[in-house]
Amino acid sequence: MDVNRLSQLRSFMEEQKADAVLVTLPMHVYYLTGFNTNPHERFLGLVIPRDGEPVLIVPALDKDAAMAASSVTNIQTHSDTQNPYQVLKQALPAGIAKLAVEKSHLTMQIYERMVDELDIAAFVDVEEPLRQMRLKKSPEEASKIRKACEVIEEVLRQGLSRVKAGVTEADMVAELEYLMKKLGSQGPSFSTMVLSGANSALPHGKPGTKKIEHGDLLLFDMGVYLNGYVSDITRTFAVGDINERQKEIYDAVLRANLAAIKEVRPGVTLAHLDQTARDVIVESGYGEYFTHRLGHGMGMDVHEYPSVHGANQDKLVSGMVFTIEPGIYLPGVGGVRIEDDVFVTDNGVELLTSYPKELQIL
Amino acid sequence: MDVNRLSQLRSFMEEQKADAVLVTLPMHVYYLTGFNTNPHERFLGLVIPRDGEPVLIVPALDKDAAMAASSVTNIQTHSDTQNPYQVLKQALPAGIAKLAVEKSHLTMQIYERMVDELDIAAFVDVEEPLRQMRLKKSPEEASKIRKACEVIEEVLRQGLSRVKAGVTEADMVAELEYLMKKLGSQGPSFSTMVLSGANSALPHGKPGTKKIEHGDLLLFDMGVYLNGYVSDITRTFAVGDINERQKEIYDAVLRANLAAIKEVRPGVTLAHLDQTARDVIVESGYGEYFTHRLGHGMGMDVHEYPSVHGANQDKLVSGMVFTIEPGIYLPGVGGVRIEDDVFVTDNGVELLTSYPKELQIL
Repeated sequence: MDVNRLSQLRSFMEEQKADAVLVTLPMHVYYLTGFNTNPHERFLGLVIPRDGEPVLIVPALDKDAAMAASSVTNIQTHSDTQNPYQVLKQALPAGIAKLAVEKSHLTMQIYERMVDELDIAAFVDVEEPLRQMRLKKSPEEASKIRKACEVIEEVLRQGLSRVKAGVTEADMVAELEYLMKKLGSQGPSFSTMVLSGANSALPHGKPGTKKIEHGDLLLFDMGVYLNGYVSDITRTFAVGDINERQKEIYDAVLRANLAAIKEVRPGVTLAHLDQTARDVIVESGYGEYFTHRLGHGMGMDVHEYPSVHGANQDKLVSGMVFTIEPGIYLPGVGGVRIEDDVFVTDNGVELLTSYPKELQIL
Repeated sequence: MDVNRLSQLRSFMEEQKADAVLVTLPMHVYYLTGFNTNPHERFLGLVIPRDGEPVLIVPALDKDAAMAASSVTNIQTHSDTQNPYQVLKQALPAGIAKLAVEKSHLTMQIYERMVDELDIAAFVDVEEPLRQMRLKKSPEEASKIRKACEVIEEVLRQGLSRVKAGVTEADMVAELEYLMKKLGSQGPSFSTMVLSGANSALPHGKPGTKKIEHGDLLLFDMGVYLNGYVSDITRTFAVGDINERQKEIYDAVLRANLAAIKEVRPGVTLAHLDQTARDVIVESGYGEYFTHRLGHGMGMDVHEYPSVHGANQDKLVSGMVFTIEPGIYLPGVGGVRIEDDVFVTDNGVELLTSYPKELQIL
């Protein structure tokens, strides 16, 4: 297990007087051990005692896969006829009084069994230290996100050749998700969004049977899930000739996107980034049509910390990865959003998405 | 809300002396109200008091959709700046002492807020009565499953035309999942399985870069999610000429499948169905290679009650829907599984999947 992550969890246990941490969210088990699995209804848990060696508990049928992937080498298993809580009991420090768990993931069913069968009296939430750790991506994590970005940009490149008048939004979604799999990802990291014409003005619209038509703004918002990490990109295109108004909002959104990216460096507040993009759009006269925050953190989840909005006074630190996605949505006319993924470096920013942003006419 | 379901929940509350039921699993909210949504991190809850009118609590942005779809007409909302637990408090009976909840879904975080902010002292698990209700599908539910079966059979029909030597298993998965979306479903109801040659002998194998070759057994196991309900079908094909051994196991599995289906009618035990299929395979000499239960219930989930295995002495009742999927897996040689979805009627069985089962050579 990564020494740095282990020592952060140990400091947390000291502070909270917790005897151990139990992690059961598969994503967090992956984060801490390198073993990525979905145990479905079976029990999966990583026990990290305040003193002593971590223990990974997996269903028996996952044993070989866990041994191959996990940096935690003490692996205990349970078969379908064994009670996993007895295996857990053995892995926990004897006489444990206080356990740190993921309270927004752990179910009441598991909680009650820990109280009844394991006699644990007190629980504390371990999610905040995990969130703080996950904020700063390691070089390995950055490299996985970079690859997920490369795949989604190739999907976009190949997918665009399939756009033609008469194809529906839903057809394009099927084409794009097909390409995601063909290009080696595990699939979409969220519901792929293809919105055209007036639909593109709905920031949370659903792709449907509307056909893509000449004169439409055409918005793609999509990402893939690859080796446990995600990408998330939005580009907006013109289908044939678009009018001056449509060009004007495209131009304003592009300038907002570029202005915000230029400000990304350690020490700047998240609020400042939102404000920088918003100022550009307000000056262009479309301020009231930029109706959402500038962006969101991403990594193993498509939405994680930090939230990039005008009230977030937290400062950027190197290792953060988040989206920058200003948009203008003119009801009845159409919408434009241009979204990039950025990685905060020691001196500034690495742009993880590089697909061209000049207005492209299909 | 369906009168029959409501009265079953009320009897449960009487028995358990619970003052109300709180349902938060989106699938169960859909089952009880007709409103199908994914609230992500926002609060969604259906309150059913022992006496009085049910209340549906939804995020404000879902209000219109809930009003259009929900049979529970008392709809309360909460915006992102409101505390949903205060809305919940208003919806619960005053002075509530005991609440029935879904213990395998409700998180410790929500549990603690209900104890701290709502002063609820006792909880009981409502999952058993919900499971019992869900066992018997209504005509509307059967009709939704029928449609999901129709779509997956059309996917199979169209997908087969794309099989040729040299195509990889993973390519075929991408093709099939593309067709699922093109044909109007929400997508796969579980990870689509395409396994060929020796891989087909792995009942839980993962489709990979293996190319489909002449002489392979080729196994497809897949389903779609449509309007909240699933389908699940397996067919095995011959790619060009296969040998006598492969034909022999195909024949045994087909006879086992047909024999079990013939026994489906109210009053028969689930164990009897498993035994009927197993007897055929044992007699054929391949008993040790039929390594799993005969089938599983399905409906809103791809795995739900009942479990069709040799120790389940529960009796079939009309309205049950489950799979019948015998298989033989010969290591190194290949595997055959033939899976149908069946609906138990008042007098016997309706076969929900009708794709031909005679050995088809591609």
